[in-house]
Amino acid sequence: MSAAVVAELEAALPGRVTTDPAALRALSTDRSGHVGEGLPVAAVLAESVEDVQHVCRTASAHGTPVVARGAGTGLAGGATAGDGEIVLSLERMDRVLEVSPQNRLAVVQAGVINGRLDAQLAEHGLWWSPDPASKDISTVGGNIAMNAGGLLCAKYGVTRESVLGLTVVLADGRRLDVGRRTVKGVTGYDLTALMIGSEGTLGIIVEATLRLRPAVSGETPTLTATFSSIVDAAAASSALVHAGHIPAAMELLDRPCLDALTSFTGEDPSQGGQAFLLLQCDGESAAAELQACAAILQSHGGRVQVARDQAEAQRLFGLRRQMFPALEARGTPLIEDVAVPLDRMADAFAEIRRIEQDCGVLIPTAAHAGDGNLHPTFSFEGHRVPERIWEAAGRIFEMALAMGGTLTGEHGVGLLKRRWLVDELGADQFALQRQIKELFDPAGILNPGKVFAELSR
Amino acid sequence: MSAAVVAELEAALPGRVTTDPAALRALSTDRSGHVGEGLPVAAVLAESVEDVQHVCRTASAHGTPVVARGAGTGLAGGATAGDGEIVLSLERMDRVLEVSPQNRLAVVQAGVINGRLDAQLAEHGLWWSPDPASKDISTVGGNIAMNAGGLLCAKYGVTRESVLGLTVVLADGRRLDVGRRTVKGVTGYDLTALMIGSEGTLGIIVEATLRLRPAVSGETPTLTATFSSIVDAAAASSALVHAGHIPAAMELLDRPCLDALTSFTGEDPSQGGQAFLLLQCDGESAAAELQACAAILQSHGGRVQVARDQAEAQRLFGLRRQMFPALEARGTPLIEDVAVPLDRMADAFAEIRRIEQDCGVLIPTAAHAGDGNLHPTFSFEGHRVPERIWEAAGRIFEMALAMGGTLTGEHGVGLLKRRWLVDELGADQFALQRQIKELFDPAGILNPGKVFAELSR
Repeated sequence: MSAAVVAELEAALPGRVTTDPAALRALSTDRSGHVGEGLPVAAVLAESVEDVQHVCRTASAHGTPVVARGAGTGLAGGATAGDGEIVLSLERMDRVLEVSPQNRLAVVQAGVINGRLDAQLAEHGLWWSPDPASKDISTVGGNIAMNAGGLLCAKYGVTRESVLGLTVVLADGRRLDVGRRTVKGVTGYDLTALMIGSEGTLGIIVEATLRLRPAVSGETPTLTATFSSIVDAAAASSALVHAGHIPAAMELLDRPCLDALTSFTGEDPSQGGQAFLLLQCDGESAAAELQACAAILQSHGGRVQVARDQAEAQRLFGLRRQMFPALEARGTPLIEDVAVPLDRMADAFAEIRRIEQDCGVLIPTAAHAGDGNLHPTFSFEGHRVPERIWEAAGRIFEMALAMGGTLTGEHGVGLLKRRWLVDELGADQFALQRQIKELFDPAGILNPGKVFAELSR
Repeated sequence: MSAAVVAELEAALPGRVTTDPAALRALSTDRSGHVGEGLPVAAVLAESVEDVQHVCRTASAHGTPVVARGAGTGLAGGATAGDGEIVLSLERMDRVLEVSPQNRLAVVQAGVINGRLDAQLAEHGLWWSPDPASKDISTVGGNIAMNAGGLLCAKYGVTRESVLGLTVVLADGRRLDVGRRTVKGVTGYDLTALMIGSEGTLGIIVEATLRLRPAVSGETPTLTATFSSIVDAAAASSALVHAGHIPAAMELLDRPCLDALTSFTGEDPSQGGQAFLLLQCDGESAAAELQACAAILQSHGGRVQVARDQAEAQRLFGLRRQMFPALEARGTPLIEDVAVPLDRMADAFAEIRRIEQDCGVLIPTAAHAGDGNLHPTFSFEGHRVPERIWEAAGRIFEMALAMGGTLTGEHGVGLLKRRWLVDELGADQFALQRQIKELFDPAGILNPGKVFAELSR
């Protein structure tokens, strides 16, 4: 049967279908390190909405699963594909269809690279604020499918708040346009928000109307602070938020992170400190706000250094963006992604240190400290997460939920967090969410097994 | 059968059920002027989540419809109740349960009045940004159920962007907690966003976790500008947005609005102009931004006057908030609520003038000019919208949709915009939305006939 599907796709979409095993292997994993079982039957490199509709219609007719993907930078296994599945890559749909400074919006295809969009918008004095660490290689469609976060969310919001409308291809191949080109709009239920973060399980996002902001002008003064403990550093970050400040970015690294970074880059930005905070302000009052933040950090024991110039600031953020490659260099990474209320951040770091001890695993943890989003990370050999690491990760999830937080702030559920989903949602909400999935995808062909472990449970 | 329902409710909820006809009449309309057929069987003034659960369980057992309401300030007939229905008022659930400056959030019951919450948050230096014109009398729960907008959305977003989580009572009485206490969170589908703006048709919103901002400090410099035509004024507003400015508020009134306001208040803020713009900036660079805005308005023919002080600014906004009472004084109002892309605002005003001529009706139109949200209004005698007015309103809806806009920017669909719903959503999305309604409320007891005209279509 899979031969028939492939033959149909190849006939209808010449030059856009590959069955080459090396290509399939590359197109069936993400950055989670997780590898699916077996190889997909084919990968389609769609070039148009119609191509995507054709894939969905064909897959529906044959009951063949479809796993959509952007650049494959996901960290939760959401784009992992295997035996009997079709990979649907949106990478070739990489056109910016419209930039409208008058309406502060852009219309783009799903495969546009975030960094390339940034550059194009900058020419118009505009900016799309979602800013994942992977922006130079990840796609806008992937951002939206995962409701990705990033470094600037405390001040500028998550992806959902920067999307006005979507074009989606449903499981059966129908094209659905949701949302609008206006800031406001309350006609019916908000299916745009429902699609954002649905991880390819409700429909394939093929185009998006993005809400833009005027580019932030002026200098972006930056400081670093080192602390003698990560708990103190987290408490200082929370105090700063409590005092009413919203830095554009506030990144926190603990000592195990700094160790990994130092051995990867040869540089320890904390100069031997136990914790390192990187903070940037923007906007008209940026300089004054940086001063105020510096004073609060100092009063909490931080040793503060203001970056000399924009070049040094960029270098420091560039170093922060090396954090993930530095961890990858240590083995297969498992990157967790809990978020906790801001006033529990110090407690969360303290608890992670306890879990490290109890489980005998090292857990380098970075945080987007302005929004309580922590990335505890693990390293292991091979492609199978050891049970010992799952145990530690599970304790971190329990901690986050007990604090009123969430098991994933920005990476999504994918494959790797499914087993904890019901713990966060509760049985009633879990059931309702599964019913929504069934409503949009009754045959269960869209990214099956992701988010929800099995539909027949 | 309705006697049995009432008896059950009275026995279980003593002191919280009324069948007094005058009370029922008052509790079965909103500010749309629309009156339902007959009187509800009873109204329940719920005092707790458990009360609401009890009402939903009882209503489910008997198949009796439930119409939830806050303060009844809606403008689309969404809270209209009639024969055989139970009114469920949330007015008595008016407690602020938690204010957390550390986490920049508040947890409130649905019946809290917006203005009272504002005052309470101000003591903590915090602010919940949704700012409907009715804020002194409307409830937070009503805001959320309608995804209300207001005067500050272009800069501070709509209600959806300021809600982190909700407690909802489902049709069958189950309590559902959706969302979280963190800024970020992507576990499963975004049911919080799905509930926001669902107009009481998917569940009863009983509590909300609100995302707060630091209160905006400093002066809020304000200007007025008069123009010799409303089309020029709209074009000037759009130019200002195009130039990268985001005033906190930018309110536009045409001459028919000014006539109504003048005869109601005795004051014409435009001093005989054809259009009147009221603009306010806030934040650290407010004064400089106001100057820049003034220059742009002047270059588009605006006669600009800067408000002397905060007292005058407040007086001007107070006058703007008299717009709705001024229109109500002329007869029963029908207030439309289209939104168009910003660069079409001048075209929209020009088209409304044409529709006025063609249909022989006066259409005073106010606009939240920063987000392209227009309120064309009609006046008539009695409680039934004349067909001539529906015809003009229908042409305005068609215009908005043809421009890539929406038929309701912030008031909701309710009863009054149902007939155009499918035109905006398209048949496929309309069907999907109806299926979502059926999934949450299979017996169809939650606010039946609102948003969707009939479920069996």
